[in-house]
Amino acid sequence: MPTTLPENSLKRPRFCGINTFMRLPHTTDLTGVDAAVIGIPFDTGSPYRIGCRFAPAAARAISVMLRPYNPYHRINVFEAASFVDYGDATVNPGVTEESFALIEADLAPIVEQGVIPLGIGGDHSVTLPQLRILASRHGALSILHFDAHTDTWDSYLGQKYNAGTAFRRGVEEGLIDAKNSIQIGMRGSLFSPEDIDQSLRLGYEIITTDQIYDLGIPAVIARIREKLGSRKVFISFDNDFVDPAFAPGIQTPESGGPTAREAYLLLRGLGGLNIAGADVVELNPSFDQSQITALFTATVMSEIMALIAISKTRA
Amino acid sequence: MPTTLPENSLKRPRFCGINTFMRLPHTTDLTGVDAAVIGIPFDTGSPYRIGCRFAPAAARAISVMLRPYNPYHRINVFEAASFVDYGDATVNPGVTEESFALIEADLAPIVEQGVIPLGIGGDHSVTLPQLRILASRHGALSILHFDAHTDTWDSYLGQKYNAGTAFRRGVEEGLIDAKNSIQIGMRGSLFSPEDIDQSLRLGYEIITTDQIYDLGIPAVIARIREKLGSRKVFISFDNDFVDPAFAPGIQTPESGGPTAREAYLLLRGLGGLNIAGADVVELNPSFDQSQITALFTATVMSEIMALIAISKTRA
Amino acid sequence: MPTTLPENSLKRPRFCGINTFMRLPHTTDLTGVDAAVIGIPFDTGSPYRIGCRFAPAAARAISVMLRPYNPYHRINVFEAASFVDYGDATVNPGVTEESFALIEADLAPIVEQGVIPLGIGGDHSVTLPQLRILASRHGALSILHFDAHTDTWDSYLGQKYNAGTAFRRGVEEGLIDAKNSIQIGMRGSLFSPEDIDQSLRLGYEIITTDQIYDLGIPAVIARIREKLGSRKVFISFDNDFVDPAFAPGIQTPESGGPTAREAYLLLRGLGGLNIAGADVVELNPSFDQSQITALFTATVMSEIMALIAISKTRA
Amino acid sequence: MPTTLPENSLKRPRFCGINTFMRLPHTTDLTGVDAAVIGIPFDTGSPYRIGCRFAPAAARAISVMLRPYNPYHRINVFEAASFVDYGDATVNPGVTEESFALIEADLAPIVEQGVIPLGIGGDHSVTLPQLRILASRHGALSILHFDAHTDTWDSYLGQKYNAGTAFRRGVEEGLIDAKNSIQIGMRGSLFSPEDIDQSLRLGYEIITTDQIYDLGIPAVIARIREKLGSRKVFISFDNDFVDPAFAPGIQTPESGGPTAREAYLLLRGLGGLNIAGADVVELNPSFDQSQITALFTATVMSEIMALIAISKTRA
Amino acid sequence: MPTTLPENSLKRPRFCGINTFMRLPHTTDLTGVDAAVIGIPFDTGSPYRIGCRFAPAAARAISVMLRPYNPYHRINVFEAASFVDYGDATVNPGVTEESFALIEADLAPIVEQGVIPLGIGGDHSVTLPQLRILASRHGALSILHFDAHTDTWDSYLGQKYNAGTAFRRGVEEGLIDAKNSIQIGMRGSLFSPEDIDQSLRLGYEIITTDQIYDLGIPAVIARIREKLGSRKVFISFDNDFVDPAFAPGIQTPESGGPTAREAYLLLRGLGGLNIAGADVVELNPSFDQSQITALFTATVMSEIMALIAISKTRA
Amino acid sequence: MPTTLPENSLKRPRFCGINTFMRLPHTTDLTGVDAAVIGIPFDTGSPYRIGCRFAPAAARAISVMLRPYNPYHRINVFEAASFVDYGDATVNPGVTEESFALIEADLAPIVEQGVIPLGIGGDHSVTLPQLRILASRHGALSILHFDAHTDTWDSYLGQKYNAGTAFRRGVEEGLIDAKNSIQIGMRGSLFSPEDIDQSLRLGYEIITTDQIYDLGIPAVIARIREKLGSRKVFISFDNDFVDPAFAPGIQTPESGGPTAREAYLLLRGLGGLNIAGADVVELNPSFDQSQITALFTATVMSEIMALIAISKTRA
Repeated sequence: MPTTLPENSLKRPRFCGINTFMRLPHTTDLTGVDAAVIGIPFDTGSPYRIGCRFAPAAARAISVMLRPYNPYHRINVFEAASFVDYGDATVNPGVTEESFALIEADLAPIVEQGVIPLGIGGDHSVTLPQLRILASRHGALSILHFDAHTDTWDSYLGQKYNAGTAFRRGVEEGLIDAKNSIQIGMRGSLFSPEDIDQSLRLGYEIITTDQIYDLGIPAVIARIREKLGSRKVFISFDNDFVDPAFAPGIQTPESGGPTAREAYLLLRGLGGLNIAGADVVELNPSFDQSQITALFTATVMSEIMALIAISKTRA
Repeated sequence: MPTTLPENSLKRPRFCGINTFMRLPHTTDLTGVDAAVIGIPFDTGSPYRIGCRFAPAAARAISVMLRPYNPYHRINVFEAASFVDYGDATVNPGVTEESFALIEADLAPIVEQGVIPLGIGGDHSVTLPQLRILASRHGALSILHFDAHTDTWDSYLGQKYNAGTAFRRGVEEGLIDAKNSIQIGMRGSLFSPEDIDQSLRLGYEIITTDQIYDLGIPAVIARIREKLGSRKVFISFDNDFVDPAFAPGIQTPESGGPTAREAYLLLRGLGGLNIAGADVVELNPSFDQSQITALFTATVMSEIMALIAISKTRA
Repeated sequence: MPTTLPENSLKRPRFCGINTFMRLPHTTDLTGVDAAVIGIPFDTGSPYRIGCRFAPAAARAISVMLRPYNPYHRINVFEAASFVDYGDATVNPGVTEESFALIEADLAPIVEQGVIPLGIGGDHSVTLPQLRILASRHGALSILHFDAHTDTWDSYLGQKYNAGTAFRRGVEEGLIDAKNSIQIGMRGSLFSPEDIDQSLRLGYEIITTDQIYDLGIPAVIARIREKLGSRKVFISFDNDFVDPAFAPGIQTPESGGPTAREAYLLLRGLGGLNIAGADVVELNPSFDQSQITALFTATVMSEIMALIAISKTRA
Repeated sequence: MPTTLPENSLKRPRFCGINTFMRLPHTTDLTGVDAAVIGIPFDTGSPYRIGCRFAPAAARAISVMLRPYNPYHRINVFEAASFVDYGDATVNPGVTEESFALIEADLAPIVEQGVIPLGIGGDHSVTLPQLRILASRHGALSILHFDAHTDTWDSYLGQKYNAGTAFRRGVEEGLIDAKNSIQIGMRGSLFSPEDIDQSLRLGYEIITTDQIYDLGIPAVIARIREKLGSRKVFISFDNDFVDPAFAPGIQTPESGGPTAREAYLLLRGLGGLNIAGADVVELNPSFDQSQITALFTATVMSEIMALIAISKTRA
Repeated sequence: MPTTLPENSLKRPRFCGINTFMRLPHTTDLTGVDAAVIGIPFDTGSPYRIGCRFAPAAARAISVMLRPYNPYHRINVFEAASFVDYGDATVNPGVTEESFALIEADLAPIVEQGVIPLGIGGDHSVTLPQLRILASRHGALSILHFDAHTDTWDSYLGQKYNAGTAFRRGVEEGLIDAKNSIQIGMRGSLFSPEDIDQSLRLGYEIITTDQIYDLGIPAVIARIREKLGSRKVFISFDNDFVDPAFAPGIQTPESGGPTAREAYLLLRGLGGLNIAGADVVELNPSFDQSQITALFTATVMSEIMALIAISKTRA
Repeated sequence: MPTTLPENSLKRPRFCGINTFMRLPHTTDLTGVDAAVIGIPFDTGSPYRIGCRFAPAAARAISVMLRPYNPYHRINVFEAASFVDYGDATVNPGVTEESFALIEADLAPIVEQGVIPLGIGGDHSVTLPQLRILASRHGALSILHFDAHTDTWDSYLGQKYNAGTAFRRGVEEGLIDAKNSIQIGMRGSLFSPEDIDQSLRLGYEIITTDQIYDLGIPAVIARIREKLGSRKVFISFDNDFVDPAFAPGIQTPESGGPTAREAYLLLRGLGGLNIAGADVVELNPSFDQSQITALFTATVMSEIMALIAISKTRA
């Protein structure tokens, strides 16, 4: 019987107590734990609306609204698997590569104990150190990357490591198996066609926002499942995948995206994926006056947690 | 000829004058009145983001944007029926059962004069005292309950009367004819499957958000009309029925819901219902910086008023 | 080779430098220029939530997020045509007709040099002076008018010139060829059926929001293209065309509208229109805490710019 | 015994009921009434941050916090004199001179019945129509004008009537007895020394913010009392008199002003003034997220009401 | 050597990690602890702007800005004494007396172990359960009560227990030694002179805001020290003691108060008081967009902690 | 006669046109120019509430409220000296030392032409590159540093270059003549006494906030003038010098500071200083909902510009 049940919100009000993710225990003891939520409050990689350093706190605050039973998968997530809130990775604001090393160091004991790390960014640069430590254990990973942008520039503002380059660096460093990876949601204006082509050349398959609508969600789900199969997958979810109406509090808003419901439908179709890790990134609380982006971030993560829970059940 | 026409916004600017709902006359004289809007600023029943006490004022403020002619029903609502703004019920913040008695007392003269009460909450606990006074006149009512949540817990935080229990209490107290009632819009994480099952056991029919999409809006409308027929109906509309993008300023946000347009399409399909009363609840102005939730609240109420107007015309 | 390329956001951060629209050069030298963005910060015509005078600044600020390549038309907009930011027209707040004269005077050199003016309002009254100067060159124009409202009242609050009358005045003054014009997006409550009928009598074709959904976007696009053909068209886009969830920061919010994506799909279908001018109006930054309305305004304008660019390419 | 006592906030919660100023009765029956609060929601005269049209509603909303007993004068204001909330004057946004006529027409019955009008602006242009109707009864009035600016320009943006000219127009029209009037609080950058000199030439005495501190508040009070004596006085209070920290929600913020407490000390020293009318202007709710400017506006008005109450008691 | 040093913000960024008060350890193990910060997120007692339930979280979030060394007392607070963040008391929203019992139960182990409880409200009703548990150990306490209001009504809205009655109930229940207690800061409009007189009759000494300025801060400090001497004191600090400019995010704003600096000067003069407990109450984050009220709350608490630290040093 | 007069706000509304600082011409042609305002949108050095990259835009936006005549010095600033808005320095977000080099490169032509640079930060790290380029021309400078904090840590979060270290680095690099420099305004909690002592050891004179009040402003001014004499001075003004009530939108709020008026009184006393350069830093628009911090920033800069203007006049 798991000892990591969240606090019961039918018994103690959600606003009582120091916020942890979904009211899970805050601990770094990973004995018997399946997956650990970890905040990665790094935003030095943000080219525009900076402030994602406050995202883990904002996501934790509203995540107390979420309940343990996922009716779409008919599963009590926390009875099926064991989750904890591991706290935050340490970062050094303004010093990117050192921060990556710090993040890797903090993630190492999680990954080494076979626990799935679930990162809450931070800007999208934080995916790279997560992949580094995961690949050191699992080898190159398949990626399922939800985003309006490809983030595969060689450099951005002359920099090798920031929110626009992680998905190229990951391939170059051998962390990402691009041939077995999908980028989904691309839309909006580009610097040039190269923004997309560079991903294709790296080996990624791209499903644009328009293609999601053209194919329909069931076909998109089928395509993802077919491509990723039983490979070790890292799901990286950038909040700008959805329209700013559903996620106003982000770094790089891109108007004209899917709805929150469509995002959840996609995620709920992915039961059985072999998830090695995941992150939800680019929540900027300074532009999230009504907490809807924070709630979206937390809900996306909770849907990923449900995917993990059903894998544990089936296993 | 009705003497209760709202002030004409083509003649006097909407921002002139003390706000009443849709610029209707503010009066407690109900002579010849068909329906009366009444604020019920009670929020002690709120388990989380409290502040619905300011909802009636916020709804009145933006409601001046709404015009008298409903093009979907091709009717001038205020020529077809007579509406007034009755003001607010008195409540006693922090004292739930006394407040229910106060609300009942303030609603009594409305109901006793055969006038339809149209409540603007307040948190969802306020539906119970409305049902009590209405059932005292009409007997048990059919309910059409728009909400992301069932609100049929036996107790919530150990309490019998708050925003999570009204739709069980109403059945227990014989106010609700659950067998002829529908709860629509349920979605999101649950405490357990019991959250839904308890409603089914009480006799409610449930149409989840997923089912709205699966069936399609016309089929949902047909089902509602078939079930409710010509029975006396109370429509209770919780703003969290729609996605937080369309109603950010609420108490219990639940990401992934329908759009505002979809809500209106459902309501516009209900012409001919025999409406005994209605409320729109859970508007929290503290999280509604751009007034879109207040406008949504007012528009939902105005669509319900149009349903009443066409009934009067047909009658 | 155009000398009016915007600053490259891959080289210099978007937040560096004084904001111009999409980082275009700010100049009044129109040599070789195809189209000029001009702010028209006039809001005296606003009957309700006033403050559109700050819209050009807000649109410029977030427009730096937009990139030069439009993937839907597969074109680098700024290589295909030459655009500049012309600055703002001068207005005199509180003095409508004088302001119209000032706006006309500032637009005159643009129109006289054969440059397409692209106005950022301001409230919707500013369309009239734009049409006056354009019609003085082109004769009566076809109009493609995106809006929740017809704006064809004879007077509004007793006034001949404000945000509710421009599309009647334009017909009366011979600036608009209503028989070859379309108003699209009407929805919500009306003062009376006359709100729509008056447009029809003036000669406009109306496609309501409901009709957009009934016909489907491809059919709507086909109808627009059929009607407007190769005529000189002025596109006037009121932000309230979309639901307030996608554009909360406006003057006259009307709940229940299309999504931002649907607006872009419509615009992207209009390649080949013979655009004489365009405006995007009614952005009110005071109600746009997360900048999503400003981003929507800028994106709509950028899609219109793409339409101009492909015309130049094909010509 | 007055029949115009405000609702008792110890008995009925302040948030219950449609807001009137300080919960006074809303009526246009002035029988036995000493002074009437009237909203004047006109803001067409605003050169910069426009939106004061929503000020009367905002002031009423928070004014419910104020209680009837003024401990500084040891008087129950509403037992000593009779006050009502008269509602709002009608204005025509965008049409200044017509609006002035409308305001005068709405004020006329108040002034004609010998009731003191207490205006809540609106921008500072609204003082002129108030003075016109008052001077028609009382002749030229002494003015006590609290403001960071003199508002005595001959024209502002070429206009004779807006927020920057009322205190010159009033002299020119014979409404203001400048020789027996004081402008207090001037500070901050000027267009030229003429900004001050023009007031002096018109006959005003000026006490700058610096002079308030140099003289000390008791001496300033003494000087005001000496100058105004028993003359009929109109008190016009622009919220920008205080530092923006104490009144952020205004049209023309001027940093570096007195505190709220200092403003109240000045007002509390003026018992015995012969007040013919008063206004508090330039509250802009769009920049008043925490309601402190609205509360300041309401408190200033309540202190003026106390001055009226003690005059009635002594008379 | 204390084992309860806060995390070092020169080593790990303040935004890393789950927020505790001033980055102290979060523990319920009180071995060797001198004082424990405890959140009391109860706001059912709020008559107006409700939402203090979120105050402990907001205070913790910004409290990370505070550093361990207090230069006014020349002491490293956390080396001189041992503090922890005990978490939050459990409350039951909407059920006042049950919540008081829960608060008492959660405070009991703190008080029983001789640890000083430092409460972060919550509305001002929460002082009563704190006093109950403290008096059960120490007998009736002297009170030093900073507030704009006396909070000594017999009932408020008919209720015996809410934010307006705690300082009468405390006397009646024998928890407060009113004869040796001071209420400081009263100002603003009253319901009647009784608002003050009732406190005097209960035995309190009152120092109004005006008296603070008349006497001067040093004399006020001297008077407090003289009166309280070495008695066991409970300091209760309502944020509305200062002007809303310095604390906009509160329940009952009262314009015209002291500055933040003046509040700190008063507190810093109280070294040597025999503090049995303290609270800081009435922070409402919904009206605190810039966190200045949360920072004020945290700073007031940190100054009280410094007073405790110097007592420990001297002892 | 200067050709660099700002646009006249009596002629063209302040909201018309692309914002430049105080509506000065935007140019990089420095012929005949005395001082140039330059934005330095760098915030990578921010340890906490990041976002100062948007400060130059925010300061420009509200700076249009300021007028050319300074009544305290009785001077038309723009007739007495010639100022321009030079635009922004280029920075590379996330790469501190490269950004410093970029800032130096952009400032070089200003300094080399003998023009006084007036920087708008940016976080406080940006003072260092400004000093580097200035010292390369003038040698070590006297500093007048307004701030709540000393910013003389050897490293902060292990970093040599960020918002907490510039005033040590400047001494170490020989850019600052600490023996002839003053740091003024220090207050609030410290990491240790070393926070102050380290400045004293470096040679700075410190005047704390308490000392400002103890000495009185005239004495403080005298002390500054005595110490700085006719030396080349760089004025560095951190907005946290004043209380957060007067500057909520900053990076490191420190409660309990002076008022805005007190800051201006200090600055206005400094006529005759030999100013080589100046900056105003740490404006964070994300926490500045009402623009009062932006207005404060702009007003401080305008007071410094007045000091420069009177020097030019006297010279």
